[in-house]
Amino acid sequence: MLSTFNISSSNKTEMIDVTSKIEEIIAKSNIKEGLCNVYVPHATAAVIINENYDPNILLDIQDALSSLIAEGKWRHDSVDNNGAAHIKASILGPSETIPINEGKLLLGQWQNICVADFDGPRERKVIVTLIKTS
Amino acid sequence: MLSTFNISSSNKTEMIDVTSKIEEIIAKSNIKEGLCNVYVPHATAAVIINENYDPNILLDIQDALSSLIAEGKWRHDSVDNNGAAHIKASILGPSETIPINEGKLLLGQWQNICVADFDGPRERKVIVTLIKTS
Amino acid sequence: MLSTFNISSSNKTEMIDVTSKIEEIIAKSNIKEGLCNVYVPHATAAVIINENYDPNILLDIQDALSSLIAEGKWRHDSVDNNGAAHIKASILGPSETIPINEGKLLLGQWQNICVADFDGPRERKVIVTLIKTS
Repeated sequence: MLSTFNISSSNKTEMIDVTSKIEEIIAKSNIKEGLCNVYVPHATAAVIINENYDPNILLDIQDALSSLIAEGKWRHDSVDNNGAAHIKASILGPSETIPINEGKLLLGQWQNICVADFDGPRERKVIVTLIKTS
Repeated sequence: MLSTFNISSSNKTEMIDVTSKIEEIIAKSNIKEGLCNVYVPHATAAVIINENYDPNILLDIQDALSSLIAEGKWRHDSVDNNGAAHIKASILGPSETIPINEGKLLLGQWQNICVADFDGPRERKVIVTLIKTS
Repeated sequence: MLSTFNISSSNKTEMIDVTSKIEEIIAKSNIKEGLCNVYVPHATAAVIINENYDPNILLDIQDALSSLIAEGKWRHDSVDNNGAAHIKASILGPSETIPINEGKLLLGQWQNICVADFDGPRERKVIVTLIKTS
């Protein structure tokens, strides 16, 4: 089963928690056991899984990536000035795949699924694919 | 088919080779062709695939991440002093997905599946999901 | 359905666009909806998804990784002098998993699938596994 939804970022760099939207999709499906792939079809955004109970963690991750990958020094910046966003998105990657059991995502207690936008503000698409084990 | 097992780390940072445990799970299943997803439901641990024939490589990877992500300078450190562990886990990600053919994992000759614990010593859970192609 | 093909790199570090080869495999299959896993069974290569319309982006990503992970300072270098290649491959990871719908890969407009070789020139194997949703 394949579903899509859109989200909107408000800042240049932002991490948006999409856990509850994905849990809703699984609840409406008839998948009891399987895998859930969360994918963003974008080259300057990524999917990450980490803790959002303390929202400072998502800010720390953004800061760490910004300190590693400086803005404004890349070949691609002459085209549309977002070279750093492409590099950060490549390091995190555009998808995560999470197990499902008894109809629920097997996220840990301190895991949330977030879309990292490194070139906002923009509207971004999220594609969720559910596969049953058999 | 979904299986879980636990492992224990003995140090703050440690990479634990789980290849043989995952190969056992596949051997006991009836999956001949498909995918194997290895997932850790933790926000300060990750799954990586690399070489463990020379175990120094796993130490080199830990050193490289520690030199990129310093300890003790993150917002989240005021909560439980493991901000760097969250950031390292985000960069590597909580899962890997490996093809299966003729009932065997298609790991390369120099690939092992390891759980990276960045906030040990702890007990960690590993979730293995097998999906058949049809 | 599982398929493999080989590619050859010409330089020490190189990113090779394999999008059209993977699209051909999907076109020949009967998969209308599902997931496509692209995997390299190598410890000094990785799979990344980013933009290749401006090929400078792939050079920027290689430069960024080289500035973060210096050559020649790792324990493993005494064995075969490619410690940095192992570390870079670990950070990017050996696979990506992409949704398929209506018989096509759901890559975004600016996404290409590339194999990153960090220890070329070499021949590298690419394993493509297609799973149907049901």
